[in-house]
Amino acid sequence: MNDVIPTKEQLLAAMDRVRPHVHRTPVLTSKSINEISGADIYFKCDNFQRMGAFKMRGAVNAILSLPKDALEKGVATHSSGNFAQALALSAKSIGVKATVVMPENAPEIKKKAVAGYGAEIVISGSSPIEREQKLDEVVAATGATFIHPSNDTNVILGNSTATQEFIEQVPHLDYVLAPVGGGGLVAGTALAVHYLSPGTSVIGAEPSQADDAYRSLQTGVIQPSINPNTIADGLRTFLGDRNFPIIQQMVERIILVEEQEIIDAMRLVWERMKIVVEPSATVTVGAVLKEPDTFRGKKIGIIICGGNVDVENLPF
Amino acid sequence: MNDVIPTKEQLLAAMDRVRPHVHRTPVLTSKSINEISGADIYFKCDNFQRMGAFKMRGAVNAILSLPKDALEKGVATHSSGNFAQALALSAKSIGVKATVVMPENAPEIKKKAVAGYGAEIVISGSSPIEREQKLDEVVAATGATFIHPSNDTNVILGNSTATQEFIEQVPHLDYVLAPVGGGGLVAGTALAVHYLSPGTSVIGAEPSQADDAYRSLQTGVIQPSINPNTIADGLRTFLGDRNFPIIQQMVERIILVEEQEIIDAMRLVWERMKIVVEPSATVTVGAVLKEPDTFRGKKIGIIICGGNVDVENLPF
Repeated sequence: MNDVIPTKEQLLAAMDRVRPHVHRTPVLTSKSINEISGADIYFKCDNFQRMGAFKMRGAVNAILSLPKDALEKGVATHSSGNFAQALALSAKSIGVKATVVMPENAPEIKKKAVAGYGAEIVISGSSPIEREQKLDEVVAATGATFIHPSNDTNVILGNSTATQEFIEQVPHLDYVLAPVGGGGLVAGTALAVHYLSPGTSVIGAEPSQADDAYRSLQTGVIQPSINPNTIADGLRTFLGDRNFPIIQQMVERIILVEEQEIIDAMRLVWERMKIVVEPSATVTVGAVLKEPDTFRGKKIGIIICGGNVDVENLPF
Repeated sequence: MNDVIPTKEQLLAAMDRVRPHVHRTPVLTSKSINEISGADIYFKCDNFQRMGAFKMRGAVNAILSLPKDALEKGVATHSSGNFAQALALSAKSIGVKATVVMPENAPEIKKKAVAGYGAEIVISGSSPIEREQKLDEVVAATGATFIHPSNDTNVILGNSTATQEFIEQVPHLDYVLAPVGGGGLVAGTALAVHYLSPGTSVIGAEPSQADDAYRSLQTGVIQPSINPNTIADGLRTFLGDRNFPIIQQMVERIILVEEQEIIDAMRLVWERMKIVVEPSATVTVGAVLKEPDTFRGKKIGIIICGGNVDVENLPF
């Protein structure tokens, strides 16, 4: 097992590698959300990250970890979400070629964003199998390196840089909460806390309607995400063999959050903090409000994962 | 005329008075909005101010400028908008009594916010005359001091603190743009620039559908705001004798902005900057995008006046 857990040296090296290509995002607080929750909450705002989400961090680190000859052949992924944009912008920022396989039913606005960052888009059928087949074709034809959005050690290490910054900005947190989707963010968060702030506990927050990670921790075996029906569209994916062992060892537990709790928390953050956050980013806030006895009087860090939301289609 | 223009000493005294009661709000930038505009834009984010708008600054300064015996009798205003909340929260913060006359048709959510800050609400008819009569009754009965939302020298001086901070945070701006409603913000902005950054030009931005200030500058006489039909609900008011002379002397000109330009600018700020801003706050952004030849290559400061918007009722 131990061979899949990255070292502290790898963690710190990722920070050095990523730093020139990402924003050091600010930490915000809200008096009124502190009053409502009874807790002392710090929000690490990666909705202000380049392309609007933490995913930029993992993509940059994964690309910069490649050997030179691989860099020349470019990178590829399949994603219809934030990671597609993250890989495209990272590749542009670093100066390598990126190909993104996107399903035919991906929203036009997302295709446009990816194309706008200069990546090549290859359209596939919409099933996971069709996407993977198309990706295999791209890799075979170009020699590009496939970078998985969440189950990749270098992506996880890149993601950890949000929490590395956070721990510098706000030391001695009692808890850090991160949302759980594909597991890449919560694993990176847990690694950073493990090495740099061992007195802090990491808690995951997951929609009840997409509770595969919760069930995976209960059973000790990665569970599939079957028909996840949640507004938190970034959290519909499932864990992988690179992040699950980290989560098992370093995440205290996962709190499940209902859909209405996610929406109420999103509205609270928009109205009180005046920041645009996506539903996936407020599952954590819902978790804190759901367990007042756990969090009252505690110093809590929340990773705001992103702010990419369709303003024409809000849940309130 | 000169006796209505506050001095530099008054300006600096307002900063000292207001500082303990308000947030020093952050300045944000956006690479993508800079690319779109061709300008180098700095956003002074008073949407992150307490109660969500710059109005907190003027209310605090006006209350703290009162003599002790007046303070004991409290303060009063009539407003259905941000100033009602600002006076209520300022009074609570300072520890004096506030009464707010609100029209019977004011939104429940605004009444709740004002009551939540501990102010007494007195309901009036919805016409301006009915509101003023009710206010006169309150003042007669309680001895409270009436504080006008925008046409009050101490309110204007309090508002100037946003720009006093801004000039410290980002020196040597070519232009500062502020929205023009009742004139209290743009006058405060212009005063701060006049004394502290004389190389900077101040430009006002006003909806075409509420162009009373533009017409006032043209004619040299304060013009009424007749049936202003703009989404920028904070800008439907008109100038007064305290702020108009300042605007005449210290504001270079006013740019008129169409409704669709305001909405497009609001969407741009939400999507690219991930911050919640009210329509009144993006009239300035619309003005910059409308005159690319004026602003290309210039270092521009924009006062984001507030973020109080009904998220259930967005224009996109």
